[in-house]
Amino acid sequence: MPELRKDPVTGRWVIISTERARRPDQLRNQPFRHPGGFCPFCPGNEAKTPPEVLAYRKGNAEKVANGSGWSLRVVPNKFPALGIEGTLDRHGDGLYDHMNGVGAHEVIVDSPEHEASFATMSEKQIEDVIWAFRDRITDLKRDKRFRYILLFKNHGDAAGATHGHPHCQLIALPIVPTSVRGELDGSKQYWGLKERCIYCDIVRQEQADDVRIVSESQDFLTVAPYAPRFPFETWIIPKQHQSSFEDSASHTYESLARALKSLIARAEIVLDRPAYNLLIHTSPINMGPREESVSDYYHWHVEFMPAMTRAAGFEWGTGFYINPIPPEEAAKYLREAVISC
Amino acid sequence: MPELRKDPVTGRWVIISTERARRPDQLRNQPFRHPGGFCPFCPGNEAKTPPEVLAYRKGNAEKVANGSGWSLRVVPNKFPALGIEGTLDRHGDGLYDHMNGVGAHEVIVDSPEHEASFATMSEKQIEDVIWAFRDRITDLKRDKRFRYILLFKNHGDAAGATHGHPHCQLIALPIVPTSVRGELDGSKQYWGLKERCIYCDIVRQEQADDVRIVSESQDFLTVAPYAPRFPFETWIIPKQHQSSFEDSASHTYESLARALKSLIARAEIVLDRPAYNLLIHTSPINMGPREESVSDYYHWHVEFMPAMTRAAGFEWGTGFYINPIPPEEAAKYLREAVISC
Repeated sequence: MPELRKDPVTGRWVIISTERARRPDQLRNQPFRHPGGFCPFCPGNEAKTPPEVLAYRKGNAEKVANGSGWSLRVVPNKFPALGIEGTLDRHGDGLYDHMNGVGAHEVIVDSPEHEASFATMSEKQIEDVIWAFRDRITDLKRDKRFRYILLFKNHGDAAGATHGHPHCQLIALPIVPTSVRGELDGSKQYWGLKERCIYCDIVRQEQADDVRIVSESQDFLTVAPYAPRFPFETWIIPKQHQSSFEDSASHTYESLARALKSLIARAEIVLDRPAYNLLIHTSPINMGPREESVSDYYHWHVEFMPAMTRAAGFEWGTGFYINPIPPEEAAKYLREAVISC
Repeated sequence: MPELRKDPVTGRWVIISTERARRPDQLRNQPFRHPGGFCPFCPGNEAKTPPEVLAYRKGNAEKVANGSGWSLRVVPNKFPALGIEGTLDRHGDGLYDHMNGVGAHEVIVDSPEHEASFATMSEKQIEDVIWAFRDRITDLKRDKRFRYILLFKNHGDAAGATHGHPHCQLIALPIVPTSVRGELDGSKQYWGLKERCIYCDIVRQEQADDVRIVSESQDFLTVAPYAPRFPFETWIIPKQHQSSFEDSASHTYESLARALKSLIARAEIVLDRPAYNLLIHTSPINMGPREESVSDYYHWHVEFMPAMTRAAGFEWGTGFYINPIPPEEAAKYLREAVISC
């Protein structure tokens, strides 16, 4: 069973994962890469993954679970960071806090095509990925042990991807991760001061300033944030206030697919097919008293971070970022990229 | 002039550095690597760096500033992330907060020998590096614009080093970085509850548990933290309570040199000469009312983080870490490594 441990000074929870590589000489290898070009996510290899928890099969395809004919498939991660069985068993050990590493770790296989990417997939296919996110959240939030669901994509080696086949990941956690906690606390404080959502105010100011906008549709603003940690970091913010991704109006998902495809296509032109991380920051689930009125003050959004720069531990160790590209310039590059969609 | 910008939601400050590479196609290059094996930090090339701000020259060597014969040299970074001239000029821009990127960015050249490292240098030479840290802090803290001084080493490509010559870096900042702020807030809260320093309590519990200790001397405990973010993350904690690195008793620096050399030598054996980041977390300088009684509740220490794992943006974007090596095992590997010093 993996363990969750809390740093006693900062309150940051860490997973000590016992299902993964453990010997020092195994650390440098990408433990999940398959030799000889074999891909467990390609059609025909369905038996090489754990049984699917969700799949979309279209039209006349034979609808047999774990059979072929799917356009999208969600399976548990074969080497999960967290285990789905068991109780949390929170306990202390002197100064330290500990709980069992209970959670879900799933892989969303975006497409049957090994070479596809968000830049080349159809908007409809990306929309299906987004609907799969929503379907899985809706299912998993019924489990009262979970407090947060992270949805993310690591694309490319430099961004930590261990499979070439296009996929996203979902991790359901019994705790709220530090960065989300920081956003929740900050936006709650702003609400306490102004009785307004800070993200709604950011959308308004960005529209007025009109220097960091990459693109805008009826539903979304794609914008380089004022204080980006990384070169070409970009956020996609819903223009309508909504705290939880999964509670958005259904037309929102179609609109988000269009915004995502447009952003990734722009980044592929400007940054020459970069590795990147994409993640959704949304409200906690099964909320406690600390999150009272979160639906007023928090506002879900997407964060896109190309993996352009090398330094790692230093930023990790300090929370201190040096970004060589002003967001106004990054936005201009992305805005002016000529895309076909 | 570089800019400091504050994220309005999380309060995290970021440097937008305008002195560094700016075009997207320059981002992938290591901008400071010199072609053809030329090293500006090797003896004889003193004119290729900005004029030194400190140097140690020994014995009969001719003591001419920026001449040869030095055993250690501190120079301003040729491509500084922050500029030393000017006023902070804090101002708002609607929601957003901004100040000029005023600060110092210096390079400590550890040794004249290009191939040296902390694993192979003499303890005396490492002690000199530590004294140089202290000398530079003592000088820079007189500048009332600065609130924090970061001292760190990036060793190896994968840890973000852009020079092969052994060196450390110093950044003096007009703000306190997020991670340090997190430690300050957490240890202040603990003090409020218990009237004890949390790091002193950690030292006591680690000695009692005796499962995460790598080594121990009269002055320092070298220990794998209970909730490490990274495989083989290790802290060196002074056993005597002291909030500021630069106020330590002078025998402490000799003792720290021994602890550092021992830790790096162990890591080089167990992890086969890893890239790593090393940093000192110490108290803010020129403290304001928020840091009242920091000398009671905070406790300086060293953090060592080997650059073993690849994923980056995901951890950056979530504050959520998965560590495949329990610290008890990491400590055992390091403890049992046979080193000659």
